[in-house]
Amino acid sequence: MKLFRSLNIVLMAALLSAPSVLADERPVAMAIHGGAGTIEKSKMTADQERAYREKLAEAVNAGYRVLEEGGDSLDAVTTAIRILEDSPLFNAGIGAVYTYEGRHELDASIMEGATRRAGAVAGVTTVRNPIDLARMVMEDSPHVMLAGPGAEQFADSRGVKRVENSLFDTERRRQQLEKAKKKIEDETRQKGNEQAAVNALPVAFRMGTVGAVALDKSGNLAAGTSTGGMTAKRYGRIGDSPVIGAGTFADNDSCAVSATGHGEYFIRFNVAADICARVQYQGKSVAEAADAVINQVLLPVGGTGGVIVMDAAGNIALTFNTPGMYRASRSSDKPLYVGIFDKE
Amino acid sequence: MKLFRSLNIVLMAALLSAPSVLADERPVAMAIHGGAGTIEKSKMTADQERAYREKLAEAVNAGYRVLEEGGDSLDAVTTAIRILEDSPLFNAGIGAVYTYEGRHELDASIMEGATRRAGAVAGVTTVRNPIDLARMVMEDSPHVMLAGPGAEQFADSRGVKRVENSLFDTERRRQQLEKAKKKIEDETRQKGNEQAAVNALPVAFRMGTVGAVALDKSGNLAAGTSTGGMTAKRYGRIGDSPVIGAGTFADNDSCAVSATGHGEYFIRFNVAADICARVQYQGKSVAEAADAVINQVLLPVGGTGGVIVMDAAGNIALTFNTPGMYRASRSSDKPLYVGIFDKE
Repeated sequence: MKLFRSLNIVLMAALLSAPSVLADERPVAMAIHGGAGTIEKSKMTADQERAYREKLAEAVNAGYRVLEEGGDSLDAVTTAIRILEDSPLFNAGIGAVYTYEGRHELDASIMEGATRRAGAVAGVTTVRNPIDLARMVMEDSPHVMLAGPGAEQFADSRGVKRVENSLFDTERRRQQLEKAKKKIEDETRQKGNEQAAVNALPVAFRMGTVGAVALDKSGNLAAGTSTGGMTAKRYGRIGDSPVIGAGTFADNDSCAVSATGHGEYFIRFNVAADICARVQYQGKSVAEAADAVINQVLLPVGGTGGVIVMDAAGNIALTFNTPGMYRASRSSDKPLYVGIFDKE
Repeated sequence: MKLFRSLNIVLMAALLSAPSVLADERPVAMAIHGGAGTIEKSKMTADQERAYREKLAEAVNAGYRVLEEGGDSLDAVTTAIRILEDSPLFNAGIGAVYTYEGRHELDASIMEGATRRAGAVAGVTTVRNPIDLARMVMEDSPHVMLAGPGAEQFADSRGVKRVENSLFDTERRRQQLEKAKKKIEDETRQKGNEQAAVNALPVAFRMGTVGAVALDKSGNLAAGTSTGGMTAKRYGRIGDSPVIGAGTFADNDSCAVSATGHGEYFIRFNVAADICARVQYQGKSVAEAADAVINQVLLPVGGTGGVIVMDAAGNIALTFNTPGMYRASRSSDKPLYVGIFDKE
């Protein structure tokens, strides 16, 4: 009996002193999105589709590699999001949509599941990778959310290089702005009401975000989101992406979420945190909780979009109520998956 | 049998055609707060205490009157909050704290429980009653959250009168700024780290918000919050007050909440919405849910502050983990209550 007890102590000591061995057996998981919306196969050339699939695979693989090498979930999230921000294909960083005034105002946020630390920036115009600035707010400021010129003063105080706002320009987004402004003007004339006019804009003008969720070998979740917001947005509009609980949420006790869609609905319905609340308080799986919020709460009231969700066991849900969502995932027990349309 | 059925139909018709009679029997309820913090009886003169108690009673009674006369919960919330914004006693509107740069940047938000519509403004400098502007964003814009100069362009577009930023000046808050800046500079010299310095600021510098929750005769909840934020705040910092789910939340299916406290914690822990999630998914009372989040989740990690919470039956919780919270309530079945310190 005494022998057994000693043996137990020795074994326990061995286990405690060898966390790397245990950690190596723990699952890692990575998922990303590049926005949801009216993405239809019939409207995309084979070349366009290939370009999206390749970039999604590149981003999810880069994040996955960080995790596999023992890096933490925050690094995996920022690595993947930087690649999406730097690509003109997505509405974040380079390729961000234009505001009504013809500029780019970028929003981003990040959250750590272990500590529930969070950082967010809104209305940033001259920082190339807003996700990195959001992380800096989290790690190197007493605040969670910084907006506008103040966020850029903070960037200066931390030695972050500033870029010209025109760096984010793309011809495709410029054309979208012209279309959106014409539609808003036509509708405002007809309806005499700007709110009705903007609400009448096709869903495509409201969509586009990039995001990532990750689980590392220490069992820690993280989530991040970055966006150029809504085409032709005005008045310093802030969407859900930099709002913790709406566009981004991470808590090791429930799940990590990054959202994309019509941001106003995602704020009002507290989408990211509500999914995690259902996981934690109702014992739902991430797939059940995401389905309940995206398809049963949001869809009936006209809230279109989607989410990527991950729990601390590495289970992943990629859920949307739009015709498509750019998405990819990879985990210890599931190979690379890349999807764009409803079924594929 | 046929007779009974006819009688039932007649009775039902009578009930359906007399909603005002039914509505008059429904409870109404009103609660407000004027901030939580290190409010101690020993540090307050009898005159100061009386001034606070009188203003709290005035605001809660004004909101209650709106409800009693059949007005809706949104009107009750804005009526009470305008009185608190216009008083120099509280950190919102006139009497708002100063930013690091010696100005006032005001945040506010409002939410309607029946529809979950919401409106919020952040970093407003020249609108006298930010709560009214937040309501205008909710009712007369396609957006939920507007920040900075854009929010003021929106105010202009809707004919809202602008005021000088100096309207919000008070000598008491000016002195608080000088103290806070000196403390931050001393601590930064000692610790070589601005984050540590700001974290070392006494809790009093982080606190101060006003808010209201209301239940009207139609059974609809509403919540609103308004603040000048944190003394010596920098870099366009946004606290929890304009963040739906953090500082403000309302949903007829669960509860209405307005929060006050160290905003960064209230954002990270999604305080207002988490209280309502516990009511909805765990079947907790508003008192149990508020206690769980404020005392069991926030307090252990150093998140100080409080909330006022109301459900659709008119139950009220006024919960805080600080030495005091300015607060008042009144409902169909409970007389006027005004409290400042822990026990009274």
